Amino acid sequence: MSAHPSAVLVDPGNALALLRSSQPLTQCITNAVVTNMTANALLAIGASPAMCDIPGEAGVFARIAGGVLVNLGTPTAEQRDAAREAVVENARWVLDPVAVGALPIRTALAAELLAHRPAIVRGNPSEIIALAGAGSGGRGVDSTDSPDDALDAATRIAEETGAVVAVSGERDLITDGRRVVRVSGGSPLLTRITGGGCSLGAVMAAFVAVTDPFSAAVAASAVYAVASERAEARGVGPGSFSPAFLDELDALTSRDSALGARVSKGVTS
Amino acid sequence: MSAHPSAVLVDPGNALALLRSSQPLTQCITNAVVTNMTANALLAIGASPAMCDIPGEAGVFARIAGGVLVNLGTPTAEQRDAAREAVVENARWVLDPVAVGALPIRTALAAELLAHRPAIVRGNPSEIIALAGAGSGGRGVDSTDSPDDALDAATRIAEETGAVVAVSGERDLITDGRRVVRVSGGSPLLTRITGGGCSLGAVMAAFVAVTDPFSAAVAASAVYAVASERAEARGVGPGSFSPAFLDELDALTSRDSALGARVSKGVTS
Amino acid sequence: MSAHPSAVLVDPGNALALLRSSQPLTQCITNAVVTNMTANALLAIGASPAMCDIPGEAGVFARIAGGVLVNLGTPTAEQRDAAREAVVENARWVLDPVAVGALPIRTALAAELLAHRPAIVRGNPSEIIALAGAGSGGRGVDSTDSPDDALDAATRIAEETGAVVAVSGERDLITDGRRVVRVSGGSPLLTRITGGGCSLGAVMAAFVAVTDPFSAAVAASAVYAVASERAEARGVGPGSFSPAFLDELDALTSRDSALGARVSKGVTS
Repeated sequence: MSAHPSAVLVDPGNALALLRSSQPLTQCITNAVVTNMTANALLAIGASPAMCDIPGEAGVFARIAGGVLVNLGTPTAEQRDAAREAVVENARWVLDPVAVGALPIRTALAAELLAHRPAIVRGNPSEIIALAGAGSGGRGVDSTDSPDDALDAATRIAEETGAVVAVSGERDLITDGRRVVRVSGGSPLLTRITGGGCSLGAVMAAFVAVTDPFSAAVAASAVYAVASERAEARGVGPGSFSPAFLDELDALTSRDSALGARVSKGVTS
Repeated sequence: MSAHPSAVLVDPGNALALLRSSQPLTQCITNAVVTNMTANALLAIGASPAMCDIPGEAGVFARIAGGVLVNLGTPTAEQRDAAREAVVENARWVLDPVAVGALPIRTALAAELLAHRPAIVRGNPSEIIALAGAGSGGRGVDSTDSPDDALDAATRIAEETGAVVAVSGERDLITDGRRVVRVSGGSPLLTRITGGGCSLGAVMAAFVAVTDPFSAAVAASAVYAVASERAEARGVGPGSFSPAFLDELDALTSRDSALGARVSKGVTS
Repeated sequence: MSAHPSAVLVDPGNALALLRSSQPLTQCITNAVVTNMTANALLAIGASPAMCDIPGEAGVFARIAGGVLVNLGTPTAEQRDAAREAVVENARWVLDPVAVGALPIRTALAAELLAHRPAIVRGNPSEIIALAGAGSGGRGVDSTDSPDDALDAATRIAEETGAVVAVSGERDLITDGRRVVRVSGGSPLLTRITGGGCSLGAVMAAFVAVTDPFSAAVAASAVYAVASERAEARGVGPGSFSPAFLDELDALTSRDSALGARVSKGVTS
């Protein structure tokens, strides 16, 4: 059951206004490939990133952070201990179970961390299915399933942990085990660069500092859909897409009507 | 002696077509500076990158990877153990001996890993000379020699380990100890950004998943020569060159006649 | 007292000419978020970066490096030992005490390293105040104070360690405990990307290889002010700013009159 069972979905534009006014300190324990893109995405959206990920400091920092991301992409021994420290100090944390199911150390760690009840779990369909114990986890960060294929698995995780579960794909799916929202749009170029999904998890951690987890996951997904479409519309290749996407995250305003338009009207209850 | 002594050199365009159709899972154990550029280069060329580099997972992953890169740029203790795991599980691996000769830990590790017979060794002339035991390794990633200065060293490594050896420079040199091919062209801007050479090693690991090591090294070098020239032709500085280069990697087609034109006709036998 | 008490301030353009002609090997022990941006900034300005940061190699490398950066942004156990090795082997080193004061492990390490007398300490006002033992260190890499608020703290560090202290902000302040120079200008977009300040510390380490620490800190600050303004003038967002900034670093010439114009005339003695 969700920790916010009765929360009304906050409009993504309103959530963005809250984020911009509070510039939440967002702690990232994340993989070596995407740290730069992740920090830049947080700065572009208006948050304040801090990649504090060593034991002895991660827990201390989590106490003052607005939100925390734990991404399992390259989980060194120090990062694993840092994650353990952080999740007991701050309930507003996001789990991104990269390649869970396919690889043993992160799979065991994900199960251990899940017991500390993340506010949000974000992954691709294969990862969500694997995390729910129902699949093999695909071949790493790739995903061959669609978000709706992972609805049962997402619902199960939500019911068992209280987390909001966000499944990324052509049409993102977000559920708290009771409500289901879909966020449409977004550019396929996000999958042609590294960090498209991983930085989305970090932006969810920034939003969860300023609103409830369900609204946070929806707002981050809507922001990514709109900004990525606009970056793609510049006619760029994947190399030029990354800076263009950061530009568009920065240029988004909280009054942008496109943000709400990406969210499905039919919230299932 | 090469593991593929009688292989006919595959046309770089044909190798690219194979890569694009199979999207090989390419595992990278690589240095902290270039992970992002490396993953993006692999995505741009059409491969599927996975930076799986911790002990306990690296060997497991190597079993399912199409190709593996071991780059010694910032070899932490965990990465060293991860490399040891990976190279016994997958014969299609590329060794990039960054700064070998100048620094003790990576020099010892490179010697140890060489015994596991890489499919390809890629380095600058100083590194190849140092790896063959004949030089000091220059002053890090810089190189003061030309690829042809390293021909004897490359030949010796090829004969002793069975690896194809690719020496990067103004005109790349690739040998399996018997044949020698040179790949001309390429932009000097590749040396004004970090990751130009390191990501080439990763792209070789992607190609070696779909063709023989000699053809893989030649194809990757041809792809880099053509894409880097086209990025430079946009009239950019080194900062704008990186995204432009990724765009051009993505835009290359397997029917691009420039690819084959970069490869020297006179394959010495 | 400064190690160069009587040095005359070298013109930033002249310092840049020296840097370009010697291409100093610049060792960086720095955080995972900014390694790529840092290496590219060093290449763009004309230095030769090497991210040699593991125990057993860091000290060996420091002996041949022209300058060394120790940045405490994500100080893993191996990086901490690497920093300890490096600072005893090369006196031309720069300390960037990222988030010191707020977090225990790096705070203790910074105090330990300070005893080895860095040539330059570079930080934001909160970090310099915290390092001098007078404040809490803000909330990570953010800074709420202005450089002039940190003048007393900077002077104290300079007097006690002999270091030149560079405080970054809207108008940078550089002191050796006796002289004070301010460098004006620079784009606020440098604070909207990750690595703006961290890479400045690395560029100081490159300049300190070719001139005295006071002139090195001033030259690096002037170079950053001019290049960042020109990148901003292209009308870019924060994503496109990073490559534009690297282009402008590369395009700067040592005869550029803007470099000297950023430095305050009134050097207090």
